[in-house]
Amino acid sequence: MNDCRQGKENKMSKKKYLFHGDYATACAEPGKLIVYENAYALVCDGVLEELTPVKPSVGDDVVEIDWKGKLIIPAFSDVHLHAVQYVTTGLGYDKELLPWLTDYTFPEEARFADRDYAARVFTDLAHDLWSCGTLHSTIFSSINTDATILLAEKLVEAGLSAFVGKVNMDRNGGVDLEETTEESVSETLRYLDLMAPFEGHGVKPILTPRFAPSCTPELMQRLGELSVERSLPVQSHVNENFDEIEWVRSLFPDSRDYMSVYHDFNLLPEGRTVMAHCIYNTDEELEMMRERDVLVAHCPASNANIASGIMPSAQLIDKGIRVGLGSDIGGGNRLFIGHQISLAMKQSRLRWVFTDRSSRIISFAEAFRMGTAGGGSFFGKTGAFMPGYAFDALVIDDSRLSRYRPLDITERLQRFIFVGDDRHIVARYRGGEFLPEPDTVIK
Amino acid sequence: MNDCRQGKENKMSKKKYLFHGDYATACAEPGKLIVYENAYALVCDGVLEELTPVKPSVGDDVVEIDWKGKLIIPAFSDVHLHAVQYVTTGLGYDKELLPWLTDYTFPEEARFADRDYAARVFTDLAHDLWSCGTLHSTIFSSINTDATILLAEKLVEAGLSAFVGKVNMDRNGGVDLEETTEESVSETLRYLDLMAPFEGHGVKPILTPRFAPSCTPELMQRLGELSVERSLPVQSHVNENFDEIEWVRSLFPDSRDYMSVYHDFNLLPEGRTVMAHCIYNTDEELEMMRERDVLVAHCPASNANIASGIMPSAQLIDKGIRVGLGSDIGGGNRLFIGHQISLAMKQSRLRWVFTDRSSRIISFAEAFRMGTAGGGSFFGKTGAFMPGYAFDALVIDDSRLSRYRPLDITERLQRFIFVGDDRHIVARYRGGEFLPEPDTVIK
Repeated sequence: MNDCRQGKENKMSKKKYLFHGDYATACAEPGKLIVYENAYALVCDGVLEELTPVKPSVGDDVVEIDWKGKLIIPAFSDVHLHAVQYVTTGLGYDKELLPWLTDYTFPEEARFADRDYAARVFTDLAHDLWSCGTLHSTIFSSINTDATILLAEKLVEAGLSAFVGKVNMDRNGGVDLEETTEESVSETLRYLDLMAPFEGHGVKPILTPRFAPSCTPELMQRLGELSVERSLPVQSHVNENFDEIEWVRSLFPDSRDYMSVYHDFNLLPEGRTVMAHCIYNTDEELEMMRERDVLVAHCPASNANIASGIMPSAQLIDKGIRVGLGSDIGGGNRLFIGHQISLAMKQSRLRWVFTDRSSRIISFAEAFRMGTAGGGSFFGKTGAFMPGYAFDALVIDDSRLSRYRPLDITERLQRFIFVGDDRHIVARYRGGEFLPEPDTVIK
Repeated sequence: MNDCRQGKENKMSKKKYLFHGDYATACAEPGKLIVYENAYALVCDGVLEELTPVKPSVGDDVVEIDWKGKLIIPAFSDVHLHAVQYVTTGLGYDKELLPWLTDYTFPEEARFADRDYAARVFTDLAHDLWSCGTLHSTIFSSINTDATILLAEKLVEAGLSAFVGKVNMDRNGGVDLEETTEESVSETLRYLDLMAPFEGHGVKPILTPRFAPSCTPELMQRLGELSVERSLPVQSHVNENFDEIEWVRSLFPDSRDYMSVYHDFNLLPEGRTVMAHCIYNTDEELEMMRERDVLVAHCPASNANIASGIMPSAQLIDKGIRVGLGSDIGGGNRLFIGHQISLAMKQSRLRWVFTDRSSRIISFAEAFRMGTAGGGSFFGKTGAFMPGYAFDALVIDDSRLSRYRPLDITERLQRFIFVGDDRHIVARYRGGEFLPEPDTVIK
């Protein structure tokens, strides 16, 4: 018996919970969903010790939390979104990537130099991430350092875990959304200093060269050095759109391909890189992603909205590449990761129709994994109910969705993902602790 | 001046309203969205008389309804859904059409022989259609006549307009979901009699041969005769999936193609036929759709979920074919027509990526039109704010979506469609009359 169950010895400082409910989770075996009906999760200091169908005998120091009949699933992770595009989400989908950036996105991002504006938007975004059960996210802010720090503050206040990046962009952003190379580096150093207090709350810095076309080779070089020196993670975009790929080829003629641009500048730290999109990849690039253990942020809504294409998700999974889901606000239009799970499945099927009908489509279990354990892998041990993993969990009241006749747990989960939304999430726990609704009144 | 404005003469029995708000609507010109900011709609006996930017002077008999600052749009029409699949929506998307039907859909539909079960499901469905602002719909019930009548009752109680079809299916449905040809005809006649009382409430019958493979030629013949004799509209499925199309070819070797099967049996009444899917059409079939003025129900969610393909919506529109949107519950997974508008745009873009980059993609205005005026055209004059059209309208409180900086009306509408949902609909009017929330307690 472990400490938590015994409740003996001097463990008074440990917080111990026993959660009762119906569980569904990804597991160590890719492509498999595990369910535990009417089961008990013993959580000690935020970490799952065991998940059992029989109620364990526990000491008086264990708080029992009864969600009998409710569905309990791992919290969602959103591994690609732009906080500063939350206002323009849904606008401009009559355009492709590059004109969409120029006409809608860059002018909006420039507004975040205004602190009050930033505070209003980020307060709502943090609230809505909480509401949607997205307890972990990797986020692009803007080039503005102060706005980025404000975003980190709002996420901490909401109790969320995140990597938050100050965007680096010393060319091709237009007059209102560019910094010099020196400004970009010095502001990045300032940002790293200012982010330090949030680390204990789980909100951490991540180097964020916007995408290769918006960074000079000199800036890329300096960021790569910084990544190595300070062991910093990196996020960026790659292989989203034909015109973009051609542009990168012309801007970085010495690099083998788009992915190599990042590699050549030391911007693919092993196991600590998120790359969004990855739609049009060469075999060499796929191999590079696997070798560097890149987490791919699959963003199906965005890829359709701005006419980019369909990421070959089954191919990447079969190659052994980690895949998570990104709402890609504002190219993507909805925060709820259930929509991305649904769209990942839809697009895998449409790709099958349009390319090779002998290819494989992804299963529901695989798509659900992307939105939980897949993306969660970037944040340590989270995204699945396995011993030693953080108990980051959502409680789903699916009674309205499932009240006609008995459904099994997998069916109930599918109903929540495909038909439900944040209204059905009745409780959120991060590291075993209940997360109350964040305040949205601007102070 | 018209009667409504003057309020003179003996018009006491007329109900007259003046609605104030920000309007967005499709108009007579396809592909164009019209907006009226801070405008007034004068509605007389349920019909829009005029929509003006200046407040008209009206008599005391006109009730003023102030939705200043709110967005007012035409109600949605859902021109293809299966009421009896509401329970299984979201389940079985790891399969293609024909196995999905056999494994999930047919067994579920057979449950509707149980009146209590049917009552529970249909009560919720009618409520949720109301909630989503879908005030018009063309619905497949099951083969069960009594369940079909119950569905019609629930729609009437909710104040909704609809065509409700008893499904005809005398082969290939499995043991629990088939009727003999004679039963199918006699039950259809009984259904037509029982539907008569609902007609005054806007809930009408529609002949519903499920799809060609589920009806013998003899049944098709009898239904076609009935359509001609009683001037009845028809709904069915066509050209959804390769295997299905091959199957139809083998079952009806004398017909030129799938669409012709319906035509050969007099089941394409001009201007009064809804055909769902229409993904894989020959030029001759497109011409036939245009000639018979078929309303095509574009069902993008369903077409992706069960790996059918992408309907060439721009091609159909350019051919002059009417196109509406169908949630296609339960192949499609969400009732809110905003999702279908969004998916119609997404899929048009993905089709462009995968087929011909010199082809045209549909605009937001075109997709919005499909969900309002396009589908609405099947229900008479509704789905747009034009003089002489029914004032079937939704009032949208988009303040939470648009509170950061001023957006124009088109942008606000896009925010509602792409980011919002039924939570933002604060009032629904059918024929100028406020529709209260339907009761969901089963009596």
